[in-house]
Amino acid sequence: MASLGDIGLAAAINILSAFAFLLAFAILRIQPINDRVYFPKWYLKGLRSSPLQAGVFVSKFVNLDFKSYIKFLSWMPAALQMPEPELIDHAGLDSAVYLRIYLLGLKIFFPIAILAFSVMVPVNWTNSTLERSNLTYSSIDKLSISNIPTGSNRFWTHLVMAYAFTFWTCYILKREYQIVATMRLHFLASERRRPDQFTDKNLYLTIGKVLLERKSFMTINLVLVRNVPPDPDESVDELVEHFFLVNHPDHYLTHQVVYNAKNLSSLVSKKKKRQNWLDYYELKYSRNQSTRPTKKTGFLGLWGSSVDAIDFYTDEIKRLSEEVKLEEQKVMKNSKYIMPAAFVSFRTRWGAAVCAQTQQSRNPTIWLTEWAPEPRDVYWDNMAIPYVSLTIRRLIIAVAFFFLTFFFMIPIAFVQSLANIEGIEKAAPFLKSFIEMSFIKSFIQGFLPGIALKIFLIFLPTILMIMSKFEGFISVSALERRAATRYYIFQFINVFLGSIITGTAFQQLDKFIHQSANEIPKTIGVSIPMKATFFITYIMVDGWAGCAGEILRLKPLIFYHLKNFFLVKTEKDREEAMDPGTFGFNTGEPQIQLYFLLGLVYAVVTPFLLPFILVFFALAYVVYRHQIINVYNQEYESAAAFWPDVHGRIIFALVISQLLLMGLLSTKEAANSTPLLITLPVLTIWFHLYCKGRYEPAFVKHPLQEAMMKDTLERAREPKYNLKEFLQNAYIHPVFKGDEDSDSEVMSEKWEEQEPVLVQTKRQSRKNTPLPSKHSGSLSS
Amino acid sequence: MASLGDIGLAAAINILSAFAFLLAFAILRIQPINDRVYFPKWYLKGLRSSPLQAGVFVSKFVNLDFKSYIKFLSWMPAALQMPEPELIDHAGLDSAVYLRIYLLGLKIFFPIAILAFSVMVPVNWTNSTLERSNLTYSSIDKLSISNIPTGSNRFWTHLVMAYAFTFWTCYILKREYQIVATMRLHFLASERRRPDQFTDKNLYLTIGKVLLERKSFMTINLVLVRNVPPDPDESVDELVEHFFLVNHPDHYLTHQVVYNAKNLSSLVSKKKKRQNWLDYYELKYSRNQSTRPTKKTGFLGLWGSSVDAIDFYTDEIKRLSEEVKLEEQKVMKNSKYIMPAAFVSFRTRWGAAVCAQTQQSRNPTIWLTEWAPEPRDVYWDNMAIPYVSLTIRRLIIAVAFFFLTFFFMIPIAFVQSLANIEGIEKAAPFLKSFIEMSFIKSFIQGFLPGIALKIFLIFLPTILMIMSKFEGFISVSALERRAATRYYIFQFINVFLGSIITGTAFQQLDKFIHQSANEIPKTIGVSIPMKATFFITYIMVDGWAGCAGEILRLKPLIFYHLKNFFLVKTEKDREEAMDPGTFGFNTGEPQIQLYFLLGLVYAVVTPFLLPFILVFFALAYVVYRHQIINVYNQEYESAAAFWPDVHGRIIFALVISQLLLMGLLSTKEAANSTPLLITLPVLTIWFHLYCKGRYEPAFVKHPLQEAMMKDTLERAREPKYNLKEFLQNAYIHPVFKGDEDSDSEVMSEKWEEQEPVLVQTKRQSRKNTPLPSKHSGSLSS
Repeated sequence: MASLGDIGLAAAINILSAFAFLLAFAILRIQPINDRVYFPKWYLKGLRSSPLQAGVFVSKFVNLDFKSYIKFLSWMPAALQMPEPELIDHAGLDSAVYLRIYLLGLKIFFPIAILAFSVMVPVNWTNSTLERSNLTYSSIDKLSISNIPTGSNRFWTHLVMAYAFTFWTCYILKREYQIVATMRLHFLASERRRPDQFTDKNLYLTIGKVLLERKSFMTINLVLVRNVPPDPDESVDELVEHFFLVNHPDHYLTHQVVYNAKNLSSLVSKKKKRQNWLDYYELKYSRNQSTRPTKKTGFLGLWGSSVDAIDFYTDEIKRLSEEVKLEEQKVMKNSKYIMPAAFVSFRTRWGAAVCAQTQQSRNPTIWLTEWAPEPRDVYWDNMAIPYVSLTIRRLIIAVAFFFLTFFFMIPIAFVQSLANIEGIEKAAPFLKSFIEMSFIKSFIQGFLPGIALKIFLIFLPTILMIMSKFEGFISVSALERRAATRYYIFQFINVFLGSIITGTAFQQLDKFIHQSANEIPKTIGVSIPMKATFFITYIMVDGWAGCAGEILRLKPLIFYHLKNFFLVKTEKDREEAMDPGTFGFNTGEPQIQLYFLLGLVYAVVTPFLLPFILVFFALAYVVYRHQIINVYNQEYESAAAFWPDVHGRIIFALVISQLLLMGLLSTKEAANSTPLLITLPVLTIWFHLYCKGRYEPAFVKHPLQEAMMKDTLERAREPKYNLKEFLQNAYIHPVFKGDEDSDSEVMSEKWEEQEPVLVQTKRQSRKNTPLPSKHSGSLSS
Repeated sequence: MASLGDIGLAAAINILSAFAFLLAFAILRIQPINDRVYFPKWYLKGLRSSPLQAGVFVSKFVNLDFKSYIKFLSWMPAALQMPEPELIDHAGLDSAVYLRIYLLGLKIFFPIAILAFSVMVPVNWTNSTLERSNLTYSSIDKLSISNIPTGSNRFWTHLVMAYAFTFWTCYILKREYQIVATMRLHFLASERRRPDQFTDKNLYLTIGKVLLERKSFMTINLVLVRNVPPDPDESVDELVEHFFLVNHPDHYLTHQVVYNAKNLSSLVSKKKKRQNWLDYYELKYSRNQSTRPTKKTGFLGLWGSSVDAIDFYTDEIKRLSEEVKLEEQKVMKNSKYIMPAAFVSFRTRWGAAVCAQTQQSRNPTIWLTEWAPEPRDVYWDNMAIPYVSLTIRRLIIAVAFFFLTFFFMIPIAFVQSLANIEGIEKAAPFLKSFIEMSFIKSFIQGFLPGIALKIFLIFLPTILMIMSKFEGFISVSALERRAATRYYIFQFINVFLGSIITGTAFQQLDKFIHQSANEIPKTIGVSIPMKATFFITYIMVDGWAGCAGEILRLKPLIFYHLKNFFLVKTEKDREEAMDPGTFGFNTGEPQIQLYFLLGLVYAVVTPFLLPFILVFFALAYVVYRHQIINVYNQEYESAAAFWPDVHGRIIFALVISQLLLMGLLSTKEAANSTPLLITLPVLTIWFHLYCKGRYEPAFVKHPLQEAMMKDTLERAREPKYNLKEFLQNAYIHPVFKGDEDSDSEVMSEKWEEQEPVLVQTKRQSRKNTPLPSKHSGSLSS
């Protein structure tokens, strides 16, 4: 029950701390030494070279141009300047559409806030219910629905406002869905791999490299087929070929099987590390030719006999090269290493669109086809999960997630009960005298219980990602989408409901089970106005200061300098030390959604909260736009496949806000409003179904008309393209090159020529993001 | 709380009445005069001719062969003799699979009953809880779970049994789903229109007739396209042609647009009636050449000037023929009459399968494609509903159905309150003396209140069908499936729950809303054992006697003889008077499902109910098998498209039974069983999702492999078939012939030749049922 003054103080503190962060950022970012921390995206794109290479020695590290300190907020307009098409080109559609979520927040809440303040706040303010009651109340409560006397006719204002807000939100949502769907279709239709994108050699298609050499633009019409059934007479390779030759005779072009090359991949990465050391020592030697560098052969180079480092690593690399070659041959020869999956390419987009959308076999659990995810987006480990195993995994994860959400406090409480002072003293009596020191004691008592929970919350997104991986999705984007959904549910139950109704999620669940269906919205509804100040503080701390902290990039900054100081040996190491990160859909989006939920729930109840939400969305938009332009290096491109989830969760928040308003009003004896309030969620859900039918197919299916248009266009543009000759030259295996970093699994591919006749067709890889990062590279080397 | 003796008496009464029905049937069916009532299917198939045409006069009406009276139950083995493949051939896959639902009941409940009686009944019986309590109880209750003392360990038996029953049911369900899916795929793959099927001239494809003439077997690879967008420059006809020529260039063959020909249809049917009169008078004249028959021109031929009947009708037919011709030209010329839908045919099954499964346009709400339903299955009125209207209709119907289910008692109570004696006396004072007669008075008081409810329940399936029609489904089978789902929900809430918890559905709803989530299964669960005797009686009256009544066909029998006596003028009229009916999926299936629900719910609680269910399933199986073989004439063939619904509802019943058992056991203080009981529905729902993924696509999608196999097979069999020449001859419009009965709407079609080259292909209409009935004919004439 904080007063306006309290809130003002908290706001001042948070604004100041956010301002301090921004100031620190403004100063740090213009120091040349931090350049790679604050502009990694440009380095990865090869458009910025290290400032360390030229100039006065000091100015290599510190910016001495004092003018630049004056315009320390200049990054803000700069971040806003890049037009959207250029942004899509620069950072990919995913990033551009992700920013639209923040814009969507502004679009929804700005008119709502204006309407609420011009209509609802006066209506609330001109009552004196709270003054006459003997309750303690704050000035904020005077602006909220709590100030309206029970049974008052003024509740009609809130009802009308609820309708207005719902219609406005739905209108904006529909418009946005349409825009994003159009953007996606346009993006998919116009995607062309630019030559510079092939430099990373991370494509699963060796063909990509040849494309690069020829500098020609091609469409690669790829479909991923999984669950190829085992056949006693034919290998997967032959089986896939025969199946598609028979069932897509006019469109099938060729295919490549997926190899399970975990071993090979680890060997290749080992070789790469050795290569890096060799480079380092050679560099060292070239600078100081007097002594050849030496190395100890023992653990971590700390003991053992000393040998010539360059010779040692040259030998090691030779040995590993041999091993890699052997392993390669083993993988290629042994059918054990072939996974029952393949990338099938088609002559035309039309043929690929048909294959991706249709059921191939009588048994719907084999020969599953779908558009191949972008090379960097593929999650290789899940390529070979059979249908039954998949359904069992789903069940296990569903149950596990239920327990995680509602019972996560149990193991944490257990750890907390162990991690008290008596427990530690018992387990390790020798620490007793140390622990008994009053400073240490108070530290343990104060922090230990919280630490277990904090650690859990930090690892929660990782746990959720592991769950998604276990569930068997085959693209990283799908993994992240699922993890985001789970994170949102977790936050909704444990942060939103948990803050409103105090107690653990399990206690809430128990309470709800023992409560009647129409009591639940009431219980939550009546607590809502009381929690407004809490959520305002939450928005300021988590939202405002969080955004400002995000732009400062304190963790990458420290880690970069530490790495740079201790580990970086070669230029390549320095590049890897940059850690640009991504916008992190699986954690970022659920966080934004929490603000949508708060905004929609409080719009009618306590409109005073809305400006705080607006400031968050505006600040976050600028900050994330800056980060996406200068920092983040998105690991994959899903062409905004996440939008249906974003849309769905806002609808969910809208329905929740309507139900809670209904609960609140029914306790206020504005009972004759109930039928009108029930109508709202019904209409909202109907609106959702309408949008789902109207726009969702753009994110799932692939219209044949579009494919055909594109095919015709390309045929007209390059009518005589000879793909077959082209494929013969393209017979190179990327895993054989050994010049990539691969830490998880290696895909090797084999392009088979199928067609004895010359065929006209053009091919181009499917998705379009500027530059794959090192992580994605590791997936597909 | 009926005792075993009471139940025995009720059973005896019901068995006797069922036996009386069967006896009456056995006697009536062998009378030649009833032949058309009890064997209409064979007449419609043309395999049986009227027994009225030969023999001694008396034996034309009464069976004098007394031997046949002795073997009066001979129809039962006869009904069981026809093997399933022959049954499919004779009555269609829908009917054959419909019978499998009854068999499924036997397969599920026979082992369950044996297990329950050998394990659970002894466990229940050997307690004396009820004896020691001072409650009144019956012998049936002694066999039920009520006889187990609270907190007893014996509840573990029930728990284990619940698991066993669930696993058995799921096993059988999975097996059955697999069998039906295979049957469906096989049926669709092997379907060939036999020549005799074209005699009805009811195909929407004029081509069908030519096929008949050529006696060749062809596959017609038809796709229905709807929501063709309006175009200012092109007609629907041209638009469809251009769209498919562009987007399916290699597979598109031709198309026919759909005409809205309501007027034309009514003219044609008028003409047909006149023709029938003419036939009648000509027959009359030919028998008695002395006087030419005359007719009065006024109302119903009762007054007005007398004219020569044959001349009158000849003139009338001539006039109507002119009108029909004019209307035809109007329909064909005016683009207003063309609906934005078309039947598109493809060269190959593969091309059709592709088109039916893919999204055509960028906008997913236009150019909607799906497999064309069977001609007789098409519901023409809904061909032209745009997407927005469709979603609004769905919303309206969802809300309307909610109110229908929960508030249907309100208008009925209102009617009842009006239809009391005082109300009638007030409204019609002149009836007062009549009503005051004590017999009439007691009749009105006794029956009137019930009549409103009864009338509502009789019309409920019709109301639900109207709702489905309004919702915009485009095939009769889909209409019936949706109506069946709604009827099941209605029955579940108002019959099942309504019987257990007395009170109207709205009162239940109100109660449930004000009750906590875990109280609801308890409330229902504890009432379940008490209602066992009620449901046993229900099964006997509604199930046993109902089945026996179904085979007697009292209503069609009476109506046939009435019609035969008063209305039948020509042989054609007599054929139409037969009214074979159908098995009525929209009412029949929900009724069976109620027995599945009762069986599964009571299996653990009161196993004594199971034998009654078993008798019902066995009797119904024999009766309906007989009816399907001899009587029913299915109006359409959906190739068992309803099975996913059947499967889903049994799963629903299973989950309900598990939840109710949980509620019941939690009141019995067998609380430590709750986690084990919660596991059951989770597993069941998971099983459902597994089956849905594994088998449902067979009912929705169209595997390309199958299509390609079929294409190849046909190409090999008839490699040089010239479809183009064939189509040139086929340019006939069935509506122009005027020899069909059309009472709703007329489809005329126009086959366009598209291809200047000769094409190899074979075509055959899609679905396969022996004979369309007159109703279906009316839809597609």
